[in-house]
Parts: sequence; C-alpha cells; structure tokens
Amino acid sequence: MKYFFDPETVALIGASGTPLRPGNSLFQNLDFCFGDKFFPVNPKTEKIGERTCYPSILDAPGKVDVAIIFIPAKFAPLALEQCAQKGIKRVIIESGGFAEVGQEGAALTERCRSMAREAGIRLWGPNCMGSINVPANKVLSFLMPMAWRGRFKPGKVSLVVQSGMLSAGFLLQILSRTPFGLAKIASIGNKIDVDETDLLEYLLDDPDTGVIAMYVESLERGRRFFELARAAKKPIVALKGGRTSFGAKAASSHTAAMAQDDAVLDAAFRQAGVVRAKGMNELMDVARCLGVNETSPRPRARVAVITFSGGAGVVASDDVSDWGLELARFSEDTLSRIKRVYPDWMDPDNPADLYPAIEKNGPKRAFGATLAAVMEDPGVDAVYAHLFAPMADLPLYDYDKMAELVKRHKKPLVVWILGFASSGDKMRAELEKRGIAVVDDIADGVRILAAISTRSPARRA
Amino acid sequence: MKYFFDPETVALIGASGTPLRPGNSLFQNLDFCFGDKFFPVNPKTEKIGERTCYPSILDAPGKVDVAIIFIPAKFAPLALEQCAQKGIKRVIIESGGFAEVGQEGAALTERCRSMAREAGIRLWGPNCMGSINVPANKVLSFLMPMAWRGRFKPGKVSLVVQSGMLSAGFLLQILSRTPFGLAKIASIGNKIDVDETDLLEYLLDDPDTGVIAMYVESLERGRRFFELARAAKKPIVALKGGRTSFGAKAASSHTAAMAQDDAVLDAAFRQAGVVRAKGMNELMDVARCLGVNETSPRPRARVAVITFSGGAGVVASDDVSDWGLELARFSEDTLSRIKRVYPDWMDPDNPADLYPAIEKNGPKRAFGATLAAVMEDPGVDAVYAHLFAPMADLPLYDYDKMAELVKRHKKPLVVWILGFASSGDKMRAELEKRGIAVVDDIADGVRILAAISTRSPARRA
Repeated sequence: MKYFFDPETVALIGASGTPLRPGNSLFQNLDFCFGDKFFPVNPKTEKIGERTCYPSILDAPGKVDVAIIFIPAKFAPLALEQCAQKGIKRVIIESGGFAEVGQEGAALTERCRSMAREAGIRLWGPNCMGSINVPANKVLSFLMPMAWRGRFKPGKVSLVVQSGMLSAGFLLQILSRTPFGLAKIASIGNKIDVDETDLLEYLLDDPDTGVIAMYVESLERGRRFFELARAAKKPIVALKGGRTSFGAKAASSHTAAMAQDDAVLDAAFRQAGVVRAKGMNELMDVARCLGVNETSPRPRARVAVITFSGGAGVVASDDVSDWGLELARFSEDTLSRIKRVYPDWMDPDNPADLYPAIEKNGPKRAFGATLAAVMEDPGVDAVYAHLFAPMADLPLYDYDKMAELVKRHKKPLVVWILGFASSGDKMRAELEKRGIAVVDDIADGVRILAAISTRSPARRA
Repeated sequence: MKYFFDPETVALIGASGTPLRPGNSLFQNLDFCFGDKFFPVNPKTEKIGERTCYPSILDAPGKVDVAIIFIPAKFAPLALEQCAQKGIKRVIIESGGFAEVGQEGAALTERCRSMAREAGIRLWGPNCMGSINVPANKVLSFLMPMAWRGRFKPGKVSLVVQSGMLSAGFLLQILSRTPFGLAKIASIGNKIDVDETDLLEYLLDDPDTGVIAMYVESLERGRRFFELARAAKKPIVALKGGRTSFGAKAASSHTAAMAQDDAVLDAAFRQAGVVRAKGMNELMDVARCLGVNETSPRPRARVAVITFSGGAGVVASDDVSDWGLELARFSEDTLSRIKRVYPDWMDPDNPADLYPAIEKNGPKRAFGATLAAVMEDPGVDAVYAHLFAPMADLPLYDYDKMAELVKRHKKPLVVWILGFASSGDKMRAELEKRGIAVVDDIADGVRILAAISTRSPARRA
C-alpha cells in the first residue's frame, strides 16, 4: 500500500490538455509533483503543454510504480491489460461508470477484478479521487491544482473516503475554512480490490498518521477491519453512509454498496473503540479535535464543566448525560479553592458558573484558579471549559498555564468559545497550537470529550 | 407587556459611572436610547458624565413606564417599594443573588413577589438582561454599548432566553459572526412574575415577530403555554435546559428551576407543533432559517434531495430517515426531465446525484433543470439541494430562478453549500436575501426542513 501514497514514478492513462477537465487537473498535479518521473499517456495528442504524451502505457520508459486510469469505463479493461503487460503492480482507476450503473457496469467491474487478480495487480477504485500524501506533497488525484497548491498543512489526521466528490468537497471546505493538519488522504470509490481494511492496516502502521477518519458506504472484510480496530493504538472515527433504508438504497446506486445491518455494525464499532460520527461535519470535527488533542483515553470520563454562563452549564450538563459520561463530584478541597474566587453569596458546584466570580475577580484569576483546582482533583478525568471572547483583543487567559495543566495532569481539556468572532478566532489559534481542542458549537464539546476521553464512547441518547 | 419593550420613559436604579461595569453599560444604553426620557438613580453620585442622577426613584420627574433595578439583591425590596409609591407598573430587576443562592435569596424572592402583586406591578427578572426592541432601537439591558451599537439588524426572529450571560453571549456571537434579523429579545432570568408564557402571548400578537425562539430551564403555566402554542400561526422553536438529571440539577442552582418530566414535555411540544432544539446553535440556526424561509408548513414532507456528490446524497438520505421524513418518489415525467441532463450511462433517482450531469452540461443547466423538475413534481413537498462553491466567483447558479420556483410552488428549499469559503459566503448571502435558508452543516439541512416543512416535526431517531 505504501507505494500508492509514495510512488517514485507514475503514469496517467487519459491525460487531458483541456483546461478545467478533471483529466487536465490530474495531468497538472502529476506534472507538478513528479516532473519527469511522470509519464502522460494519450494516443490522440503528442504534447500537452511542454510534455510529450506516450501513445500507450507500453511506450512509457522504465518502471511505473502507480498507473492512474482516467478514461471512459468501457476502455478500462484494455488499459488494465496493458498495465499488466508492462508489469505494473499498482493501478488506480479514477473514472466512474462501473458497478454504480447497472448490469453492464457490473460486468466491467468483474472483468477488471479478475484481470487484476491474475496479473497480481493491486487495483484501487474505480469512481474515486485516488490518493494524496500531504507531507510528501504527492497528489494522485483530480483535485483542481489551484484548490490545493500551497494550502495543505501537514499534520496527523488521515482520511479515508469512499465518495469522490464528497472527499473533494470536504477537502476544499477544510482547506478554505478551518485548515487542520493532514497526513494521507484516500478516496477509494467502488473498491474493486483495495478497501478500507487495506487502508486501515496501512494507516495504523504509517508514522505520519495519528488519527484515522473514515467515510464508508459499506464495510468489506468486516471481521479483519474490527480486529485491526480493536488492537489499534490510534483513534479511529467513522461515518457509515447508508445506515437507514433510504440511505442504503442511495448508497447502492452511488457506490454499489450492499446494505448492512446497522445495529450489528454499531455494536461492532463500539466494541472496537471506534468513535462513530453521524454527519460529515461531525466526522471532520471529531477528527480535527483528536488531531489537536495530545492526551490518552481513560476508562471513564467524569467531566468538570466550567462556564461563563449558568445556562451554558445547564445545556452542557444535559449533553454529559446524553453522551453517557458523568458529571464529576468535586472534592472538598476543590470546592474550597473555587470558593475563594466566588462572591460570598454563591457556593461552587459542578458545572461551575464563573460569571459572578469573573465579575468579582476578572476572568484570568477566576478561570485560572478554577481550572487548576479541577485539573488537580482526582475525581475529575476531563474538563469542558466555556471561554468568553471579548470585543477587544484583551489578554483574558493564560494559555501557557492551561497547556501546562493539561500536560501535567494528562486530562483532556475541550474549549467552547462564545462571543466575538475576531478575538474568538485568535483565542482558538492560541489554544489549538498548544494541543487544546476548540469546538464551534456548545453541543459538540461533550461529544468530542466522549471521543477523546474514553475508548468506548457512547452514542448520543 | 408591550411597554416592557416599547416604553417612553425609563428609570435606572443603580446607575454606575464606573466604566465597563454592567451598571455603566445600562446607564449608557438607556442614555443613548432614551435621552432625557431616561432618569438615572444613584444616591451616592450627583452626576454621571453630563447627566444628573436622582437620589431616589421618588425624585424622578414625571411618569416612569419601566424602572430597572440593578443594585445588590438585599436592597431590591426597598427599591421596589419606592417604585410602588411612585405608581410605576413595570419593573425589571436585572441583578442576581436571589433564589439561585439558597434560603435567604428565596425569602427575598418571595418578598419581591408579594410586594409586586400588592402594588399591581408586573415584575420581570431578577438575574437577567432585560429586554431589547431591535426595530425601535430600545435596549433595556446591560449588554456593552460597543457590542450592539450599529450591529443589530431588524428582522422577524424574536428570542426569549432565561439565562442572562447565555443570551448576551449568543447575541454577541450572532452579531459578530452570522447576523440575522431580530425583532424582540427578552432575557427573563428567574421569572418572579413575568414568564415565557407572558412573552409567548405578547410575541404571538407582536407584528414585528415572525418566528419565536426560546431557551428556558423550566416552563411555568405549561397548560396555558401549550394552549397558546397549539393555536399559534407563527413557528416556535424551543430549547429546554435541564432535560436530564445532570442538567436539571444545574438548572436548579442556576435559575432555581424545578425539574420537569422531560418525556411529558416532549410529547406536549410535539402536539403543540413546537420545534424542539437540543442545543444552542441548533436553536439559533433553526430560528434563523425559519426567519429566512417564507413558505408555510404542510402536513407531510416528501423530500427531494439534489446533490453534487453521491456520498452527500447517501448521508442526507440517512438524515431524512432519522428525522421521520420521506424520500419523495419522483414521477415518470420528473425522471425523464432529469434524464435529459444526465449522461447516457446514468439513470436519475432520488437522491439525484448531479455530478455526472454537471460534468456533461455544467452546473447551471444540470442543477436548474433538475430543480425545476422536482419543484413541479406533485409528489415532492420540499427540496434539499447541495450546491458547490467554486474557487473563483463564477455565476454557476440562477438565484432568481430558484427563488421564483420556491415562490410559485410554495415548497421550501434548503441549501447546503460545500466548497470554498469566500464564494460560498457570497452564494449564501444571495440565497438568503431571496428567502432560501442555507445551513452550515449537511446534517442540519434535513433538520431544518423538518422544522420548516411540517407542523409536527419529529425528533432525531
């Protein structure tokens, strides 16, 4: 699998010179990433820009680590045969029009599968966007060049996505809105051969990958998948499309996915400690936060909730209950330490509503003292803090101290920021670069804590 | 109730001259909104800025429509007594330190309640941020002046929020991030007298209000509340804090709210056609979309899903099932109209995956033809469309035509935009000003459609 992400030489069967066509994006990306280690194939064109095209893959000079096929489905078997002749061992078919379009496509799929098997070729796709290796800057995908160049940020989250456009769309969204660090990206499509279990196995061993996020419409080789997941030392978060009968029908016409009993899958995900997401943003958000967070999971999560608003504490407490976590019972020592920053008329509890304490002592002292107390409390496993973003860019919080507490006590801290967009965005950057995850929505925080804190997070009640 | 939002004259007992103190924000807001129809009261100061303070409310000249009390809780009864002496009929206590702080506070609360009752005073609060009338620019709240001046956008959503800081925080968030049109805002706190049922009754009659969004920790006079809600012609969306035992305990220390059986409440909300939100962002997002949307609810919601990505269609179909809606079965006519923009190898269905059609015909034609076909299909009640935001600001969609279809067929259209932030934000503005709601997360779209399309939206499965 490694060479699918890190080939030395690549060929493209179906290189296009027409601007804005996906075959041209592929051409440009490979030309940019591999230079003269890239061999474009097109029997109808001699040159695309400065580059000479080969009439067939058989004419490409030297060894080809990965060949990408991007031509109409009906011509794919011929191209595959030629790849076999040339002794190529890894092929990605990115074109669509296979099993998702009925009987004829199903026959094509079967033909490609058996040809690949006989020739000892690992076949990736079809109907997909291929692979991207962010740290090595190798893009074997028809993502538009201007969409990704200079935008990728290397990091520890790897993505496996069955749908092509969805992976492209989400990448664009991530890159243009809230970029987070990525390692490997795999868009696997109809999975003639290479499937999410292959990818899971590879990514669990991949030193660049720290967190694995998956969108799949079916699980092939479920037994092996869950074996790997159970033994995994890296967090895995998964969204399974086609959970319901409506969704399963749509998945079947999309990637020819077979319906699977969702209750069975759900139990298997949970037993294997896989965090299950219900939506795309949730998948990305959980993965992003897992990528930021540096603490290890614990067997249970007794959560301390520290808020700027009593109401937010109430809502977060409901979420703690919904997600099957516990509200920590603070020790006498913790309560008396918090009491020191509270006004006389108020007794602290969990959730700790800091507003009156902040009115009395300012946010730095009120929040700082409370966070230190709950982090040191042996009855607390994780902390959810709501911070206020003021209009002006005031130094309300001691970020280094917060990071130091997280590191020393190895307890995850998730933060929700309420208030002004501009200062909130700055606060978020300060926190995230110190390994503290920040959520967009108050409702996400407990969900993320469930994912970060325990190996077997519950589903929302 | 009207005068709580639209008084001619107001007094502030507890005007402060100290910058950044809430009592000073209140002073500045009232001074700005009411000029010489505002009477600041402070026995310790002769002047705040240019304004003369009155030693007591009894010294204020002329009639006072609303008096705001913002002094420590223990002095509130005396201030209230003086309000009664002066014949004031509406008082807002914004200070905290009442029932939420135990026995002593409970006694204070009781004293204020009986004093108000005897004097025929409607009493609002305590522990709250008062009222805001956006179209009339009357802010009876300690929101910081620089946080709201020049930022409010009049519109048809009214908010009732029990928690003070939470309402302030969310207002700031709305104003600085995704401002939407607001009518009346009420932060009602511990509800000694004025409660959400009073507000509901008022807002249902208020011509500025088109949508009512509520955050409450308890429901007083539930019978009357649900009577009003059932008869309501305006959509109501509600978040109830303290649904769970953790949350109920937190609510009791926050606003002295009594725990209520959530299953009973849930059934009552549903019967009354109240949309129930589970989180704060959801509450605001549903309210915002209901404020944008101009179509009326129908008895059922057979949804057409039109996407740029097969995977997104699968995920949305699962959501349709989760929210108890139906995936529409397209008529033969609709299918043959869509088929005209599809490539030969693909047959249309619901969800309609447009990517291959867009490759063939471009987005304007592929999306335009499909939207027109499903809007005209009598088997479709509502449409969820996923649009792609390109890198460059290209005219991919005909917004006027989309709005015209919505208007002609009176079917709600909700849009999710995937892709580049900058062009996506522009697309969103174009759509929203034409009454088409845009959601941030693919998972929100069906939720919003459930809220917009039917009078009795289900809870998520």
